[in-house]
Amino acid sequence: MFTIAASVQAETGYDAWLRYAPLPAPVMARVGSVPLSVTLLGNSPVLRSARDEVVRGLSSMLAAQITASTALPQTSTILLGTLDRVRALVPDAPPPAELTNDGFWLATRAVRGQTVLIVAGRNERGVLYGAFAVLQRIARGENVSRLNERQEPAAPVRWVNHWDNLDGTIERGYAGRSIFFENGRVLDDLTRVSDYGRLLASVGINGVTVNNVNANPLVITDGFIPQIARLADVLRPWGVALSVSIDFSSPRRIGGLDTFDPLDPRVAAFWKDRVDALYRAIPDLGGVVLKADSEGRLGPSAYNRTHADAANVIARALAPHNGVIFYRGFVYDNLMDWREPKNDRARAAYDNFHPLDGKFDANAILQIKHGPIDFQVREPPSPLFGALRNTNQAIELQITQEYLGQQRHVCFLVPMWKTVLDFDMLATSTSPGTPVRELVSGRTFNRPAGGFVGVSNVGRDANWLGHDLAMANLYGFGRLAWNPTVSARDIANDWTTLTFGHDPQVVETITGILLDSWPAYERYTGPLGAGTLTDIIGVHYGPGIESSERNGWGQWHRANGRGIGMDRTIATGTGFTSQYIPLVGAQFESLASTPDELLLFFHHVPYTHVLHSGKTVIQHIYDSHYQGAAEAADFVTRWRQLERLFDRERYASVLASLDYQAGHAIVWRDAVNNWFLWISGIPDAMGRAGRFPGRVEAEAMTRERYANTAVVPWETASAGQAATCQAGQTCTARHRYQGPAGTVDIAVQYFDESDGASRFSLFVGDRQIDSWTADAQFGSATPNGHTSTRRMVRNVRLASGDELRVQVEPDALENGALDYIEITSSP
Amino acid sequence: MFTIAASVQAETGYDAWLRYAPLPAPVMARVGSVPLSVTLLGNSPVLRSARDEVVRGLSSMLAAQITASTALPQTSTILLGTLDRVRALVPDAPPPAELTNDGFWLATRAVRGQTVLIVAGRNERGVLYGAFAVLQRIARGENVSRLNERQEPAAPVRWVNHWDNLDGTIERGYAGRSIFFENGRVLDDLTRVSDYGRLLASVGINGVTVNNVNANPLVITDGFIPQIARLADVLRPWGVALSVSIDFSSPRRIGGLDTFDPLDPRVAAFWKDRVDALYRAIPDLGGVVLKADSEGRLGPSAYNRTHADAANVIARALAPHNGVIFYRGFVYDNLMDWREPKNDRARAAYDNFHPLDGKFDANAILQIKHGPIDFQVREPPSPLFGALRNTNQAIELQITQEYLGQQRHVCFLVPMWKTVLDFDMLATSTSPGTPVRELVSGRTFNRPAGGFVGVSNVGRDANWLGHDLAMANLYGFGRLAWNPTVSARDIANDWTTLTFGHDPQVVETITGILLDSWPAYERYTGPLGAGTLTDIIGVHYGPGIESSERNGWGQWHRANGRGIGMDRTIATGTGFTSQYIPLVGAQFESLASTPDELLLFFHHVPYTHVLHSGKTVIQHIYDSHYQGAAEAADFVTRWRQLERLFDRERYASVLASLDYQAGHAIVWRDAVNNWFLWISGIPDAMGRAGRFPGRVEAEAMTRERYANTAVVPWETASAGQAATCQAGQTCTARHRYQGPAGTVDIAVQYFDESDGASRFSLFVGDRQIDSWTADAQFGSATPNGHTSTRRMVRNVRLASGDELRVQVEPDALENGALDYIEITSSP
Repeated sequence: MFTIAASVQAETGYDAWLRYAPLPAPVMARVGSVPLSVTLLGNSPVLRSARDEVVRGLSSMLAAQITASTALPQTSTILLGTLDRVRALVPDAPPPAELTNDGFWLATRAVRGQTVLIVAGRNERGVLYGAFAVLQRIARGENVSRLNERQEPAAPVRWVNHWDNLDGTIERGYAGRSIFFENGRVLDDLTRVSDYGRLLASVGINGVTVNNVNANPLVITDGFIPQIARLADVLRPWGVALSVSIDFSSPRRIGGLDTFDPLDPRVAAFWKDRVDALYRAIPDLGGVVLKADSEGRLGPSAYNRTHADAANVIARALAPHNGVIFYRGFVYDNLMDWREPKNDRARAAYDNFHPLDGKFDANAILQIKHGPIDFQVREPPSPLFGALRNTNQAIELQITQEYLGQQRHVCFLVPMWKTVLDFDMLATSTSPGTPVRELVSGRTFNRPAGGFVGVSNVGRDANWLGHDLAMANLYGFGRLAWNPTVSARDIANDWTTLTFGHDPQVVETITGILLDSWPAYERYTGPLGAGTLTDIIGVHYGPGIESSERNGWGQWHRANGRGIGMDRTIATGTGFTSQYIPLVGAQFESLASTPDELLLFFHHVPYTHVLHSGKTVIQHIYDSHYQGAAEAADFVTRWRQLERLFDRERYASVLASLDYQAGHAIVWRDAVNNWFLWISGIPDAMGRAGRFPGRVEAEAMTRERYANTAVVPWETASAGQAATCQAGQTCTARHRYQGPAGTVDIAVQYFDESDGASRFSLFVGDRQIDSWTADAQFGSATPNGHTSTRRMVRNVRLASGDELRVQVEPDALENGALDYIEITSSP
Repeated sequence: MFTIAASVQAETGYDAWLRYAPLPAPVMARVGSVPLSVTLLGNSPVLRSARDEVVRGLSSMLAAQITASTALPQTSTILLGTLDRVRALVPDAPPPAELTNDGFWLATRAVRGQTVLIVAGRNERGVLYGAFAVLQRIARGENVSRLNERQEPAAPVRWVNHWDNLDGTIERGYAGRSIFFENGRVLDDLTRVSDYGRLLASVGINGVTVNNVNANPLVITDGFIPQIARLADVLRPWGVALSVSIDFSSPRRIGGLDTFDPLDPRVAAFWKDRVDALYRAIPDLGGVVLKADSEGRLGPSAYNRTHADAANVIARALAPHNGVIFYRGFVYDNLMDWREPKNDRARAAYDNFHPLDGKFDANAILQIKHGPIDFQVREPPSPLFGALRNTNQAIELQITQEYLGQQRHVCFLVPMWKTVLDFDMLATSTSPGTPVRELVSGRTFNRPAGGFVGVSNVGRDANWLGHDLAMANLYGFGRLAWNPTVSARDIANDWTTLTFGHDPQVVETITGILLDSWPAYERYTGPLGAGTLTDIIGVHYGPGIESSERNGWGQWHRANGRGIGMDRTIATGTGFTSQYIPLVGAQFESLASTPDELLLFFHHVPYTHVLHSGKTVIQHIYDSHYQGAAEAADFVTRWRQLERLFDRERYASVLASLDYQAGHAIVWRDAVNNWFLWISGIPDAMGRAGRFPGRVEAEAMTRERYANTAVVPWETASAGQAATCQAGQTCTARHRYQGPAGTVDIAVQYFDESDGASRFSLFVGDRQIDSWTADAQFGSATPNGHTSTRRMVRNVRLASGDELRVQVEPDALENGALDYIEITSSP
């Protein structure tokens, strides 16, 4: 009975979780009576946003006319205002001091005989957040007739960062070009920025840093500041403070100085001058973000100064304006000697910043990635979280799925983030402890600032993040930043309902896929804490097992023929475990008490080491990759059950993504398993790894004009090789089917390179049964684990002796590369 | 007392072992009296060559005037003639039938009161060979006053092949461009070809194939045959028969036919027509060489015909002219599925040709590489040698050092060839058995033809093969083809004496280096039968451990983390051992009876397997590579003892080569050991592998403008990386020496790429202590194991705190790449 509501509307995903779809009758019944008028106390851009949103949301969801007023009407109404204004009208409202900044209070009162749904904020932003809260409760089908609820954010900092470059590209962005910049300027049409601000505000995000942390110093020049101010103007009505990333060598690069020594008074004067100029244009600027002395960025080490020196010279320029500086803790040596077994990139953040605890000014915040490495599929919490007592800190979470499928794989990150947020660092002797979520909020050590930073990197794709399901991560980040104790299931469930509607099968299926997605991704990429076994010094997407080894980037898993894992113990390893509070470190120091899922992060063990699960490490690797790939395939099956239960656009778009993911999960499975099978020399007890029933290598097919090419790294192509075709030719690979007559599924595994288009066709005899164009602009220009792609052609009738033929016509740059075909009985 | 004779003459190596240096007096005393006149019976180009050579040799060695006549003079004389002519003058000469073709008889007789040194040949060629024999005996300081000796070749076929292309390049040639061809034509000046023919004749070689087995079909067109005939004309006086390589698809490519099916009468007619044309121009043509159905060459498989069909259609065209066809047994599938453990390239020759035994015509000869793979540093004999009873066969040996250091490393191949020639295949029940040398001669099974083919590939370098010591291989091939029972030491000793003179220290040292060179090369490249662990699908020169794995070329060593080796047993492997006569195969089938040096050719064993030597496999790998590199270093020390004992040109040239080799042996040592240390995870019990005292990585030096680059494959650079410099820049890498004051040797390990020039300088403080230009045209255009090169700067005084600085200025294409410096105390 829910199937009608939204299924006929075309959707692009642009509205995300703020669709305000008309509520089906049974949902409306649950919601109860809702006032059809809204009363706004006061007048400001933020307050008007709140009122307009209520009008927009209610009129759409209730299909009713909503009236707006500035004084209490003679009907029931939704009353929007700051607490002090509301108390003037409603005597039993709570006193404003009881709410923290950005908090709000929702209550139902009778005022002059009319029901008033009070939305009272501690500040204007609180009013806006309260308005969104009411609308989302209605959209989720919750009863709003008797509200009495206060909501306060977990932390003052709830920001997103964008790694957008001024030329319009986005570093680690996977959904089109920048919504802010193009060609060295801010875009003319900022409608999309405003709509983005609305999305952020709806989940309580109050700050956005618009440019890449690998910052162009031009951003803070007089010529560019007016451009930035335009962005601030459209974000301001949504209570979102703008901030910018800065380059630490700016005094020399744009300031006309011969130094950027933070202790040089001329440098201090430079920063004061530039910060003052920023605040003249943007009086409510949030502050700045600084990446220094890392990955080639210049920093205070050039003058033997400390990170605190660097942060404070800028913090002191910001302080008079109440601005803050986020100093990134992601500082490490990317030229480390990999042969020295004591070297350990994981140690870097603590080693750099722990000695400086207490040296940072009150308006400086250390921005710490959630784990000690770099957004891998599984990491323990950064030990810095438990180690800083006199330094503001914020946790940096990555919404853009850099190492987690780059929005081509569904990977709901809230469960992963919660493994860190909920981790008790035992930083004090208090009970119930000091989970990371408390430490970063600043409460544990009474810090004046702290909170959550998410690297968002939305782009100009219609649905913001490329994959419709990826928006659950942006939503989830906001929800956690507001309240990190909410469960992943609740977040997934809420997001799904808001995004896809109320059909219980839809909600249950999509929530289930979301909750299962990270574990599946971990299983088919890098289980047991080995990290995402990807091409670590390149695009960070497809498999590349050895790419992390033997280079200075320090992300080593140390796999050799006998075993795998980084020994980070005090006893025999890098001593990383000593950076934790002893009770925490002791758990990881001991092989026995280290949980299986982090085993290889902390210990080097032989492949024959037996896990707590009872399996050997090598068998776990095989099993995990087969299980993960099977789960990815199952996502497709589960999704297909939803056909016609909502709009066909998003149904089809997500189905295509899940189909692709299922194929790429097999690329991962085979690459990782083939590599470990080779190097360990230990067979898969289940007999799967290295055996591929029904698979016919392109090299073994009868080929015309196709040449054989070795694929690098070898494990990313079946048998290490592909058939490649020169542009301008038509290449074919033929195979005579010898199996029994029946209905089969045919997988065509090919390489969709980023540098052109190849037209593929599949024939049975003379009959073309499928054709498609490989024209991705993604990943890599050669055949490898980034580009390996599976085309499934299902339910093909074959007789023994039928000839299958793959034909390709590549253009000037593509290779039309073919890996194999695989013929299996249709299920 | 011998040190004066030749030491002041400038030498280029062009004269090779035919220098005819004036004999020192003590040597002359040993030689005894030598006639100063020469009498030639008959008159033909070959006979005149014999006479002229005697005049040339004696007049030079004896510093005397030599008179020539056509009838016995009134003085002692050297009498040259065929046996029938000699017997007419000297009644007690043996009857001609007692000598086989090309054989000769040397004897001292008194004729009409004068001493006559008789050089009597079975045929004219025998006369020429006898003349060379007398001259070399004199040059070696042997007494020739009472000769009575008959010499017969071991086999009728003693040919060299050249892989020269018509454009002047040489496939697997390492000493300059072709002496035959340039720019699609035969060279105008063929002086060098004549001189080459003389060298060949001096050691009994009677045939030369001038063009690449990967043949250009144009060679046998009417337009090109006159060119070939010019080559035949200059070789003819040396008794060297010319032959050509042909392309099997010629009927289609140049014959205007739509087929090259060997059973098609039109194809047979084509071959008859072309062969007749060849013989019209070159009546004494030796025959043709054919590579078919291998490495992309077309062959009879295109029409489902056999190799015998292919050989015979051409053999029948040759037969009326007494020509022969060499059909190459090097036929294998280079697209083999490496994942199938039963696949084995080593099986290919036997599998292809054993079933055809008896099917080849009498003038077809199967040309079989000495081992079952491809000229690796150690192989067992090809099982085909013991398996063919009704087919002519020739053994193909490779003089050009394709997998054996490419004439940049000294590697005297006679000892290696003898491991195969002396191997008893037990092909019959005869005693003393059937060593390969007997089988290929044709004697064992009374075949009409058979013998030895050497792939020579001399080039236009002054010394023919690039490295002065490499000529010992061309000489040694000739000696073995004539008489394979002569010892390697005798050959080395003879060659050294002829080439470098009579100083006992010189002869002993160079002979010693030659005899030690192949074992050393085997130790630092690929011990235990694993094959040369080189870049197998590229230039076949520097290390590249994994390059042979996971491709269709089939040269696999199957190393993984647990063990190494190809299991070729019947019981558990590819069954290759079944191709040998059972008694021979049984030795290799059993792990216990397989000799250590071939262990990994036949068995896959864990690294912990204990050898007959008592060492584990992994420790043997480490030890062997350290020992081999130390031996290469010792060659330099040994050579340095020879300074001023002969001409400084060849002294300096060989010293430079040995110096280079010692450095490159360290590249090999480190690459192989680092790779096995990594994959096995088993440390070197001697603590050397992976530890490099005194080494400072370029990446760890203080660098200006130098960038870090990952080297592929990683094991070919220390720590897997190099510092690279862009053209047009001056890059520097500095290191402050912290060791004790003293005299040190400084090794600068850099990459001398093939694509440009980089100017390197080494400074201590401000003082330049060395500079050199990396401008090799060899190997590879990137930093890797082919280009890694060591510059040794010896005896440098350093104080603690001194700054060492490497500076480079690369040109447009070179990278000026630097790997490391290594500082060690001077010995």
